[in-house]
Amino acid sequence: MRIHADLTPQDRYQDVVMLIDVLRTSTVAPVLFERGLETLALTPSLRSARGAARQGWLLLGERQGVPAEGFNYGNSPAELAGMDFSGRRAVMVSENLPRWLATVAGARRVLLASLYNAAAAAEVASRQAQERIDLVGCGFEGEPDLDDALAAGLLAAVLGERLPSAARTGSTRFALSLLRAFPDPMEALWQSVSGHYLRRVGLERDLAFAAQVSMSGVVPQLVGQQEGAGSAPLYLFAPAPRPS
Amino acid sequence: MRIHADLTPQDRYQDVVMLIDVLRTSTVAPVLFERGLETLALTPSLRSARGAARQGWLLLGERQGVPAEGFNYGNSPAELAGMDFSGRRAVMVSENLPRWLATVAGARRVLLASLYNAAAAAEVASRQAQERIDLVGCGFEGEPDLDDALAAGLLAAVLGERLPSAARTGSTRFALSLLRAFPDPMEALWQSVSGHYLRRVGLERDLAFAAQVSMSGVVPQLVGQQEGAGSAPLYLFAPAPRPS
Repeated sequence: MRIHADLTPQDRYQDVVMLIDVLRTSTVAPVLFERGLETLALTPSLRSARGAARQGWLLLGERQGVPAEGFNYGNSPAELAGMDFSGRRAVMVSENLPRWLATVAGARRVLLASLYNAAAAAEVASRQAQERIDLVGCGFEGEPDLDDALAAGLLAAVLGERLPSAARTGSTRFALSLLRAFPDPMEALWQSVSGHYLRRVGLERDLAFAAQVSMSGVVPQLVGQQEGAGSAPLYLFAPAPRPS
Repeated sequence: MRIHADLTPQDRYQDVVMLIDVLRTSTVAPVLFERGLETLALTPSLRSARGAARQGWLLLGERQGVPAEGFNYGNSPAELAGMDFSGRRAVMVSENLPRWLATVAGARRVLLASLYNAAAAAEVASRQAQERIDLVGCGFEGEPDLDDALAAGLLAAVLGERLPSAARTGSTRFALSLLRAFPDPMEALWQSVSGHYLRRVGLERDLAFAAQVSMSGVVPQLVGQQEGAGSAPLYLFAPAPRPS
């Protein structure tokens, strides 16, 4: 077994991918399922999202920190944690994680992982993986960002406890160094470029929310995709089954 | 002006590249010139290096921490800092930095930068650059490594003092976060994968040497290349001219 970290997505995954966008998609996705959501569709295409909304899906997305026009809610995990989505389906538009789904969708399994669901995500990944787990940070505008790099380090540490004989590549050890350097995750989120952006639009509380470690047992897993009305498909996620 | 950091070399540089291999090529290169060397050739090809040696060049290189058979010296900055290379030419073989020279050689200027020559390298780069400076870590076996990432952060900080209005891309801010997280560079070198390797072969003193900040005024600059006897050319370096 091999554990590898990429600070931005590459084009070569085959086995299990843990896709990381701490601020905020891979943090908010577990929250939605905790609050009863049945299916989550992610897409970078506003038009595909609006098409789904016409079929009764809730529409989640923001521009500059507030829900976009015609959207039901924004992307804020701190806000959405107080809602009830029982029996609903939702489509979420965001500019970062969804645009990488086309790149990683060829892997055998794609999980959404964050600090918030770290232990559960490691448990699912270590059970699913045949030979390799890739920890893949989405970064910010195609460049490495500290929030996702730190989470890759935390996930590598938790995976290391479950898979003590797994080989860790150099970049995994780099991510583990970050974990040692930032014992308080909030500090790393605060310094990250994504964190700067959220602070600027008044969403500091999402940093505090996303800095919580292993609070959720939900691990969103890519289960399929369907044609969208726009330029990109809808990527469908549901909670990975876990042994009870 | 734009300052960008890459934790591993990419294939897109046009203006000024500061190529970083703290452990050890971009640390040892300034040392050799300080000790009187006239020209330094770098190559990943053992055969090209041996060809140059037949023409009177000193041959520098290691296998497992000791000078390779038939080589005059190893790659240890701590050791070479005590030698006299006045009037000599040397060819150095190493597996990491030299193999990236083909990738970056298309840039208008290629400088070797490290913690050891940080201030001087920033001075030269800020004078040479027309629109962009790329801080390019060599990493370890193609993956990011902490020694070079930290040095990218330090170089970004020093460049920022000289070019206060330069834009810093996201990855530059990521590298700057590392600099804040590791106020003692030795700690980062110690944790790096390259540092682990050197410690294993008994070369801890090279970590201490490479952790020194801005001790050298020498900035090796790519000045040309010549055909080698082996699979790769010899990349020729000389100190960049500096205003007196």
